[in-house]
Amino acid sequence: MDTLATTPEPPYYAVIFTSERHAEPDDGYEDTAARMLELASRQPGFLGVESARERLGLTVCYWSDLDAIAAWKAETEHVAAQQAGRERWYERYSVRVALVERAYAFEARRDG
Amino acid sequence: MDTLATTPEPPYYAVIFTSERHAEPDDGYEDTAARMLELASRQPGFLGVESARERLGLTVCYWSDLDAIAAWKAETEHVAAQQAGRERWYERYSVRVALVERAYAFEARRDG
Repeated sequence: MDTLATTPEPPYYAVIFTSERHAEPDDGYEDTAARMLELASRQPGFLGVESARERLGLTVCYWSDLDAIAAWKAETEHVAAQQAGRERWYERYSVRVALVERAYAFEARRDG
Repeated sequence: MDTLATTPEPPYYAVIFTSERHAEPDDGYEDTAARMLELASRQPGFLGVESARERLGLTVCYWSDLDAIAAWKAETEHVAAQQAGRERWYERYSVRVALVERAYAFEARRDG
């Protein structure tokens, strides 16, 4: 998640998760977040993930199709994490499900 | 950009820009990035933006339609910034244009 995701040619799906956390101390958040990324990456249809946090947290997870997204949303351990998120960690968040129609990438040329 | 974007009901578009910067010093990057956000927010069809950077930078900009995205991509000052990005700032980046089909938000209840 600390490098650009390598995804296939569109179409595929992006789930855009943006969040603001409570000011209070961590209370298990980091461990759960890491565990969820590990779990998600083993789900069928998982294509990649990109994430960064400053005041705002942005995580974009790429999926092959809507069924894969529904299965991940319903995964038991993930459901518990979502509940903990609402009860303990997040001041607010939003989730957007979006169909990636076009994509392009740039990479700086390395001379020599 | 340091708070959650307030967007209308779907459908609308998300442009997901993820990037890795060169290790070198700034060389005008921050000023240009701030200027581009200011310019984008005044473009027709602009709906909102969310952004965070750690090692990876993620910026998700929301737009009403593809014409609005095309107009922003072709905006003169933005074209120059894109070129500077490729020549001076970015090791690599990717741009994904995605149709937001569904969205939901959560906000913690404030008691008292």
